[in-house]
Amino acid sequence: MGMRRGTNLPRMGDFNRSVILEAIRRSVEGLSRIELVEATGLSAQTVTNITRRLLDEALIMEAGRTINGPGKPRVTLRLVAESRFSVGVHLDPAVITFVVLDMSGAVVRRRIVRVAEQEPRRVIETMARTIDGLLDEADVDRRRVAGVGVAAPGPLDAERGTVIDPPKLQGWHRVALREVLAEATGFPVIVEKDTTSAAVGEVWTAAGAVDDSFLFLYLGTGIGASLVRDGEAVRGSSQNFGEVGHIVVDPDGPPCACGSRGCVEVVCTPQAIVERADAAGVFDGDPDARGARVVEERFTLLSERAGEGDPAAGAVLRGAAAHLAMLVSVLTNILDVDRVVLGGPFWSRVADVYLAEIPGRLEARSATRAVREIPVAGTVVGDDVGAVGAACVVLDSALTPRASDLYLDR
Amino acid sequence: MGMRRGTNLPRMGDFNRSVILEAIRRSVEGLSRIELVEATGLSAQTVTNITRRLLDEALIMEAGRTINGPGKPRVTLRLVAESRFSVGVHLDPAVITFVVLDMSGAVVRRRIVRVAEQEPRRVIETMARTIDGLLDEADVDRRRVAGVGVAAPGPLDAERGTVIDPPKLQGWHRVALREVLAEATGFPVIVEKDTTSAAVGEVWTAAGAVDDSFLFLYLGTGIGASLVRDGEAVRGSSQNFGEVGHIVVDPDGPPCACGSRGCVEVVCTPQAIVERADAAGVFDGDPDARGARVVEERFTLLSERAGEGDPAAGAVLRGAAAHLAMLVSVLTNILDVDRVVLGGPFWSRVADVYLAEIPGRLEARSATRAVREIPVAGTVVGDDVGAVGAACVVLDSALTPRASDLYLDR
Repeated sequence: MGMRRGTNLPRMGDFNRSVILEAIRRSVEGLSRIELVEATGLSAQTVTNITRRLLDEALIMEAGRTINGPGKPRVTLRLVAESRFSVGVHLDPAVITFVVLDMSGAVVRRRIVRVAEQEPRRVIETMARTIDGLLDEADVDRRRVAGVGVAAPGPLDAERGTVIDPPKLQGWHRVALREVLAEATGFPVIVEKDTTSAAVGEVWTAAGAVDDSFLFLYLGTGIGASLVRDGEAVRGSSQNFGEVGHIVVDPDGPPCACGSRGCVEVVCTPQAIVERADAAGVFDGDPDARGARVVEERFTLLSERAGEGDPAAGAVLRGAAAHLAMLVSVLTNILDVDRVVLGGPFWSRVADVYLAEIPGRLEARSATRAVREIPVAGTVVGDDVGAVGAACVVLDSALTPRASDLYLDR
Repeated sequence: MGMRRGTNLPRMGDFNRSVILEAIRRSVEGLSRIELVEATGLSAQTVTNITRRLLDEALIMEAGRTINGPGKPRVTLRLVAESRFSVGVHLDPAVITFVVLDMSGAVVRRRIVRVAEQEPRRVIETMARTIDGLLDEADVDRRRVAGVGVAAPGPLDAERGTVIDPPKLQGWHRVALREVLAEATGFPVIVEKDTTSAAVGEVWTAAGAVDDSFLFLYLGTGIGASLVRDGEAVRGSSQNFGEVGHIVVDPDGPPCACGSRGCVEVVCTPQAIVERADAAGVFDGDPDARGARVVEERFTLLSERAGEGDPAAGAVLRGAAAHLAMLVSVLTNILDVDRVVLGGPFWSRVADVYLAEIPGRLEARSATRAVREIPVAGTVVGDDVGAVGAACVVLDSALTPRASDLYLDR
């Protein structure tokens, strides 16, 4: 039987160091030592000791003095953004997106690489070469790179860092992505679900409270959900939280390979929506065109036509929004969150229509509508949320304080 | 913007005290100080200091010495079970169940009261009188009562401790249950969803690891879900986690008042199952009989007939199990848990049929079947899981260490 572990002074010291570094990072203008005492509840002595060490390590710097009435002037402490970097890679069936972030979470380099259907090992080699090129361009000292985060479609075998048969990545059968990429780059690699990465990116980028709790609904080639509770992404026991593809959102919908009908997978994905639009006569081109690239182009075309007032295109998108609202209501009724964020690579194209349709439908189906409303908003991160999020996963695991880190090791 | 708070020595001391008390409580045979050092990772000095204080407060006692080779004999430390008590009340549409637990989680008194449709205030008065009577019978010193936990059907207004319009409790509109019962009994009262209470009861009663993670599916008058992650019940932002009534589990199912079809509410509840059995000709009595009591009696009859080999009754129950398996798969695919526990007041009557049907169906629909299996089992607590769980909620909030308790107050 496992027992809960106690804590001790060195654990407490590490935790408080992370708390102070996080408070400084999250403040746009920097903080004085007195403000840190107020923000963290720590004693002035503890704050002085910890900030001295952070200054020695050049993770923070003194940036100006404020005179505020009599007494000593206050010294503002600010993050040294370029003291650490991290790399984010978003592995998608159509494209691979790369970003380099500094410790403030700012994107210092970005690149998109289209990969035709290639053997996984060759794709990983391309990744390693691209990462190397981006770090050269940005003139980043390799010793300051905290690691590489890869956002990949689930489900994942988190223990082995492998991608397991993601339905939309052909040939990626149990590829040891973490190990092979770590060897090719020389950096530690974290493989995370694209949906979870996106949620971590949202937490790092949004200037929300540290105890923010929200559902992130990820609109990519597939649809996935992730959850942030008290500022922390909830990963689940096997790190596969949020597989929502076979939730029924339309009892009158088309049959699904799973044996049911009207699942998210056959109703809400870009491919399903494009097929419905095709049947509604929205497109004039080749009705048999296939593949991830074609779906993406047609999805863009559909949203453009809807924006131009094409009634058939508008009706298809509003219908898709209504079905997604069903999914969102199922998830919020289960998970009981404060708010909902929608994002992912396909999000910006449907944001207007979806934000007009979803909130009212969600409200009507909310189990807790008598006690509160659940606001719905688009991501603050943009279309690169997968790659940015993957880089944030690396920064997050290195920098964010976790109460659970206080437990003594076994 | 909220900031994360640091921690300090007094917080650490309180936390380590809870860790040691929990370790002693969870050990059936008691633990020596050396075993506590091993179990918790704390220093011998810290263990000695904390156990001395626990002995002074009479929460633990010295129970025998073991001689183990040369050196000083080891003293076994054991919980003083009768040092604290708590009361659990399960408010159900048909019956109210009361239990008194000691600190070890053992039931020392139990009573069931059937309430006809009464005005909520009169029901609360009955509760207070029954609690008083039970404590008298068990000869419990009122100063040793940690509080009263009430398991109530959701949704709840947790801030006000009120029940909001639970669909199956007529007349309970925004009743200030917590406040009124606290006044009537003189004890602190915690109101918790019945489903969450059940999960806490399961954690306290099962001798699982402290980092146990499971989905608890609660079969009561309504169906609800709760989640335990790392040994702690997940309550959600408004403490209404787990509203699953309008998840579609049968696209061919009957229409639901929510506007959809085949929802859990109209397919998986005892009432829905009894109606289906009625239509299948399982019962020979009055087809128009209604009310919570009739549903309960017929549900019992249905399970008895299925057990006796009645093919129509068996088919209805197996169908209900298949639909519940759909719900379980939706939940496990979202929540990514290690295992599933089924329980609640209606559980024991269907356990055999459900445990034969659900695991295979769940496996077939699991998004992570390539990496792991998800075992399914019945509760270890029994039909009183709601009331026992509510009493455990009180013990849990008083005794279980939480890393989050380490944060300094604002």
